[in-house]
Amino acid sequence: MPELAYLNGKIRPISETYVPIEDRGYQFGDAVYEFIASYNGKLFCMEEHMKRLQTSMEGLSFPKIDKSFIEKAVYELFEKAKIARAGIYIQISRGVAPRDHAWDKKMKVQIIMTIKEVKEYPLKLREDGIGIITVQDERWANCNIKTVQILFNAMAKQKAKDQGAFDAIFISKDGIVREGTSSNFFMIKDGCLITHPLTKNILPGITRMVIMDLARDLGIKTEEKFILKTDLFSANEAFLSGTITEILGVRTIDGIKIGKGKPGEITQKLYKALRKKAEQDI
Amino acid sequence: MPELAYLNGKIRPISETYVPIEDRGYQFGDAVYEFIASYNGKLFCMEEHMKRLQTSMEGLSFPKIDKSFIEKAVYELFEKAKIARAGIYIQISRGVAPRDHAWDKKMKVQIIMTIKEVKEYPLKLREDGIGIITVQDERWANCNIKTVQILFNAMAKQKAKDQGAFDAIFISKDGIVREGTSSNFFMIKDGCLITHPLTKNILPGITRMVIMDLARDLGIKTEEKFILKTDLFSANEAFLSGTITEILGVRTIDGIKIGKGKPGEITQKLYKALRKKAEQDI
Repeated sequence: MPELAYLNGKIRPISETYVPIEDRGYQFGDAVYEFIASYNGKLFCMEEHMKRLQTSMEGLSFPKIDKSFIEKAVYELFEKAKIARAGIYIQISRGVAPRDHAWDKKMKVQIIMTIKEVKEYPLKLREDGIGIITVQDERWANCNIKTVQILFNAMAKQKAKDQGAFDAIFISKDGIVREGTSSNFFMIKDGCLITHPLTKNILPGITRMVIMDLARDLGIKTEEKFILKTDLFSANEAFLSGTITEILGVRTIDGIKIGKGKPGEITQKLYKALRKKAEQDI
Repeated sequence: MPELAYLNGKIRPISETYVPIEDRGYQFGDAVYEFIASYNGKLFCMEEHMKRLQTSMEGLSFPKIDKSFIEKAVYELFEKAKIARAGIYIQISRGVAPRDHAWDKKMKVQIIMTIKEVKEYPLKLREDGIGIITVQDERWANCNIKTVQILFNAMAKQKAKDQGAFDAIFISKDGIVREGTSSNFFMIKDGCLITHPLTKNILPGITRMVIMDLARDLGIKTEEKFILKTDLFSANEAFLSGTITEILGVRTIDGIKIGKGKPGEITQKLYKALRKKAEQDI
């Protein structure tokens, strides 16, 4: 089936789907989003994504929408497109109104979605690992809300690409490692899996949460604590996590080899466990 | 004439103008904007707005567009709408492409504009002055680039409105007064007009620049320096400046009276000079 888009109840080809220029998502970045992947025709962690979407909307004081209304729309698009390994992008903006910073609280939200086939990363990338760079975090102070204000993320990703790296991770002014441009960051030190605690400075990643659970199931020690940039280079392993990223082992950071310079044993074990869970979650 | 919109060369009613959902302005906040006002059928500070638009595009590494191309489009819309006291909103996004954080450097920018009649603020508001609140600045670190990533500005404006105030000004973590949600901030102390210096934390306001020039012409001492929140309450006068705001005298900040609790003498003198300049700039 072709890739499709959804707009306020109507399903059409993506290239034929348009929004009014006075959509607040377009003129103020006043919109939230989610990205959900399916494996073998089944949406993975649907419940968790729907919950986070609600939390994001609450974070911006959007009017309440019935959760089942959005869920139904997602399933309608998913069933129509019949793509077994799909990526569904959902964006909800505060609505459409003549441009004004303040908003009418009775405004009707605008829901768009796209569904596309997920292009799996080449096996070689997963085996060899990725090179990443560090970039000073210049984003706003509410990165826990998944808004479309991700221009700085896009700029950092482009910077990485320009330098021949795969992605970038953000470092706070105080030297704390936050997260990737569209992923969370993990490191492994002396057998312990460490990641940033849930604060306003990072996205509460759903894959992050699944990985922490899987690690505990596998008997891997886990810790949520601040990692300093200076700690990075003593890591035994490191990886990025996300809905499409899944788990991507890190080879180098700023050109410096991490561990043995390829995805380590625990990284690989977690990746296998994650894929297994995603594929069997039926 | 009706209010109109421009999209990549075509002029139509605003309500009939749409952008593709995969416009990067919509999904990444990857767009810059300008707002230009006309007085008596003449666009005010057109050259300065065009220059700042170019600077914003350069700040985001957009491909170069010939300045005369954009200027011509602005004049085309302005002449077609025949609105003597018009507000023209111009937004340029990096372009339209399948969603991906990184971008194709050959992407074609997308230009939209709207033209509307400017609704003048009531005379009483200008005479009585406005109440404003302070809000901690949680925006990104590149506020000198005029992007559409202004969700936090919108949130602060709404917060002010909810509290019965007119607008909000941003205070840095260190207590420095930055600017308003869509305006620059000025205070007058012992006859000296003081405003924030041009750094990455504020917009290089065009009205701000005009006011500084007018003040010098009027023999008013000016200074660009950091104002601390604690300095605010010893100000003799304070005002906000912007293209539509022009000069709006401040009555109270966080409910505390500034000076005599109404727009002061220097504020009024500068407002008159600004209007005169705008209306005579033919």
